Amino acid sequence: MDPAPKLKLYYFNMKGKGEPIRLLCAYTGLELEDYRFASSQEFVDLKENGKLAFGQVPMLEVDGKHQLIQSGAIMRYLAKLTKLCPEDPLEAAKVDAIFDQENDAFMGATVASYTTRFGIEMDDATKQKAFDTISKEILPRHLGNLERLLKASSTGWVAGTETPTIADFVWFARFDDYIPNRKQLSENLRSLDDYPECKAFVERFKSLAPIKEYYANQK
Amino acid sequence: MDPAPKLKLYYFNMKGKGEPIRLLCAYTGLELEDYRFASSQEFVDLKENGKLAFGQVPMLEVDGKHQLIQSGAIMRYLAKLTKLCPEDPLEAAKVDAIFDQENDAFMGATVASYTTRFGIEMDDATKQKAFDTISKEILPRHLGNLERLLKASSTGWVAGTETPTIADFVWFARFDDYIPNRKQLSENLRSLDDYPECKAFVERFKSLAPIKEYYANQK
Repeated sequence: MDPAPKLKLYYFNMKGKGEPIRLLCAYTGLELEDYRFASSQEFVDLKENGKLAFGQVPMLEVDGKHQLIQSGAIMRYLAKLTKLCPEDPLEAAKVDAIFDQENDAFMGATVASYTTRFGIEMDDATKQKAFDTISKEILPRHLGNLERLLKASSTGWVAGTETPTIADFVWFARFDDYIPNRKQLSENLRSLDDYPECKAFVERFKSLAPIKEYYANQK
Repeated sequence: MDPAPKLKLYYFNMKGKGEPIRLLCAYTGLELEDYRFASSQEFVDLKENGKLAFGQVPMLEVDGKHQLIQSGAIMRYLAKLTKLCPEDPLEAAKVDAIFDQENDAFMGATVASYTTRFGIEMDDATKQKAFDTISKEILPRHLGNLERLLKASSTGWVAGTETPTIADFVWFARFDDYIPNRKQLSENLRSLDDYPECKAFVERFKSLAPIKEYYANQK
């Protein structure tokens, strides 16, 4: 792992699945070239001319030759480079489980947003109905679990680890950007007012010095 | 990690998300108590009386006191105990990506099967329509990717590793049981006839001595 590999992230000019990767690099001090497509057409062009071998983003190019895909795989890779994963297998399993819960929590929303990718077609009314159920039942259930985990955590991080792990990065990204800005979700969910532990977690994460600096530089 | 932890898996009496865990233990020689609920009522009862702290299965109980959930987290934990993960971070990232692709490939099918869990309600006709699209477009695209990966693999395992990894276990379970037996999928998909590399992979996996022995003992 020496010297540090040259990392270039390919993603859209949005937070989405790219943000936890960028934040992890900012937090750990890994240098990252944060390449953002100028347009969705540029993504399609790169895909069609074979520059994106798997046709998927986020894609992390390592040393100009390896293409890593799947945001979870990229996060785990970066966490290994920076020793951000707990060494104890049981503690690591708790981190992995909370990381994967994030995926479960938003699976319905993902399918409703990118219907053709998953084979479930929906008109706008059906989509909105799905988001209503997600607002009223699915996310409250998952966020309630997070509230309990955060309440039980002596450190303020979701898996009770000393420092943030990949699980904190993905949940933070959802709380900071996805939930508040997703117009199909109900207002009372988007405010996060019913989830004080989650709200405090967002502030705690944002107050980490390298994260603060990262967002200051983004402006 | 010494002595080996005492492992007890809680799951239904079916393959599903439990099978890759059972197979990984069989393959690596980890002793596993394979507890299967006698009925779905037993699961509900255990959930309600607090025996399943997270209300989710598969759940792996370790040394009678730790409850691990999320099949991916359990698989990664067991792979660490048995040194089944590639040590090289790039190789591990490839394994992780193909492991997560399995989840992506079946996300639509999962949502269509367990609608209330994800907030997308569907009547039977809509479900069947989803499975038609999944049969005709979604799974062929993903299985086509697998065909290419297997063709490019010099070892016959999906990530090109010397020995099977967690990615092989989850894909095998889908090929061996889920796809062939899922009646909502089209016949020509269920036969896997258009996917010779995947078919050969299934046979290769089944021929591993400990896997052969595992299935012989199941009968």
